[in-house]
Amino acid sequence: MFEKIALVGIGLIGSSIARGVKAKGLAKATAISTRKQETLAEAEALGLGDIYTLDAAEAVRGADLVILCTPIGAYEAVMDTIAPALEVGAILSDVGSVKGHVHRVLAPKVPRGVHFVPGHPMAGTEHSGPAAGFAELFENRWCMLTPEAGEDRGAVERVIAFWEALGSNVELMDATHHDLVVAITSHVPHLIAYNIVGTADDLESVTKSEVIKFSAGGFRDFTRIAASDPVMWRDVFLTNREAVLEMLGRFLEDLSMLQRAVRMGDGPALESLFTRTRAIRRSIIEAGQETEAPDFGRQHGSAPGE
Amino acid sequence: MFEKIALVGIGLIGSSIARGVKAKGLAKATAISTRKQETLAEAEALGLGDIYTLDAAEAVRGADLVILCTPIGAYEAVMDTIAPALEVGAILSDVGSVKGHVHRVLAPKVPRGVHFVPGHPMAGTEHSGPAAGFAELFENRWCMLTPEAGEDRGAVERVIAFWEALGSNVELMDATHHDLVVAITSHVPHLIAYNIVGTADDLESVTKSEVIKFSAGGFRDFTRIAASDPVMWRDVFLTNREAVLEMLGRFLEDLSMLQRAVRMGDGPALESLFTRTRAIRRSIIEAGQETEAPDFGRQHGSAPGE
Repeated sequence: MFEKIALVGIGLIGSSIARGVKAKGLAKATAISTRKQETLAEAEALGLGDIYTLDAAEAVRGADLVILCTPIGAYEAVMDTIAPALEVGAILSDVGSVKGHVHRVLAPKVPRGVHFVPGHPMAGTEHSGPAAGFAELFENRWCMLTPEAGEDRGAVERVIAFWEALGSNVELMDATHHDLVVAITSHVPHLIAYNIVGTADDLESVTKSEVIKFSAGGFRDFTRIAASDPVMWRDVFLTNREAVLEMLGRFLEDLSMLQRAVRMGDGPALESLFTRTRAIRRSIIEAGQETEAPDFGRQHGSAPGE
Repeated sequence: MFEKIALVGIGLIGSSIARGVKAKGLAKATAISTRKQETLAEAEALGLGDIYTLDAAEAVRGADLVILCTPIGAYEAVMDTIAPALEVGAILSDVGSVKGHVHRVLAPKVPRGVHFVPGHPMAGTEHSGPAAGFAELFENRWCMLTPEAGEDRGAVERVIAFWEALGSNVELMDATHHDLVVAITSHVPHLIAYNIVGTADDLESVTKSEVIKFSAGGFRDFTRIAASDPVMWRDVFLTNREAVLEMLGRFLEDLSMLQRAVRMGDGPALESLFTRTRAIRRSIIEAGQETEAPDFGRQHGSAPGE
């Protein structure tokens, strides 16, 4: 499908792409570049690519598809390094969770003749680093692409075909709308999860040991996404501020009403909300975006640590 | 271990106890009582017990262990029905998620000579009803017991042995402290999950279909506990109001600071919180209260609906 794919950044997402490319034979060669020698050595030991280099410009030279897989905060510096080495006709893409910022920062620096097709695979786990990736990560997940209206249709089609080959469903979307969608489906959920885990960690009336022991009552569900990569998520909140604050405002308005229902002992209001929210999970399961198994399919009765 | 166990209420928890009792041989007979004929017939079809009756008083007659497994809001009415039929020397227990309220409402109605040992197994799934239960639900989970200080030691020991036989670890705790612990580890997490699922359902700028499609970015984790039994959870918030409002207040204070960090673009504050919260998940995994598998061990690459 491609002659040479260059992956700049090789964490969970980058390494999962590398494995998928290899498993499906999507490129003659994969070049991997990352900032730290240690991470590069790990990627090489895992056999993720064909070319390994600390020099991003070297990685992208001759590549017909370049995908930025670093935290978003590093994009500008990476772009300054690679721009002179990008080939005419090459496609530049990325996997960042925020798209408006990516367009604002990168688009002015994309050389003439290079196609710019930003992307965002809605997939991940709470683990980070090259060893955490796996080829099936994108299967049956959605990948959103946010090319500008005038972008070369052929280039967009090639990126669509690439993600479909990795098992994803692809949706084209305006960057600003994308950022609103992920603010409610991903960014605010992460913010709230990080927040309650922090609150529980800070209490003096309930000990940390009690929080840990009795976490199976619901709390532990939040700790999964609150264990996601700190730098990646810092950059998400630094670059999608407006949409996050808007959705957080809606969440807080609703929470004030719910707090009032608890204070007033308004049973019908509570039961009505709790009944309505059941239906959404059912829809997500029917859409193939969630497991039907109880408790996420967690194993029950397993020994400690298993 | 017991001659006759009476389970009043046969939902997820009651039916899991019934299956555990049968699997481990903990009683010569299990009597099952519930309010609805339909549910009782379902329990009988599943072969969960030995005696099935719509009359709770009949179920508890001759029982040496009685466990209330209905939503907490039904306790007072159930108690008025069963009190005259409770045997001297019998143990009365329950599985309610709030304990202060249970002591306030039930303790004055417990007949002389009946031992009162309230309990709360920290276990569950998002599914409800007799068919949703399974014998392993309590394995490696904590069960909290909140008997009053003067309660008969032998009776308390028998209840401890019962939960240990079902695979649980048991902790004795003061009812008021219990209610604070579960407010942060279970009740506020549920409230927040219900709230964000409601918020997402109400948006007009992002469609419901988009929320469902792109839920794998984090949102779907919240939908699991927001799919829990509406009546049970209504009663939790009606009966543990003070502790919930206190913990929710702490959560909201912290969220205001985090909201400010996003608004100000305070990267170091964000990264510092996001790093700290990772450690808590690690501790929960080490304590055997959570799976180590990425993404809760969800299957990746499965077809829609699987």
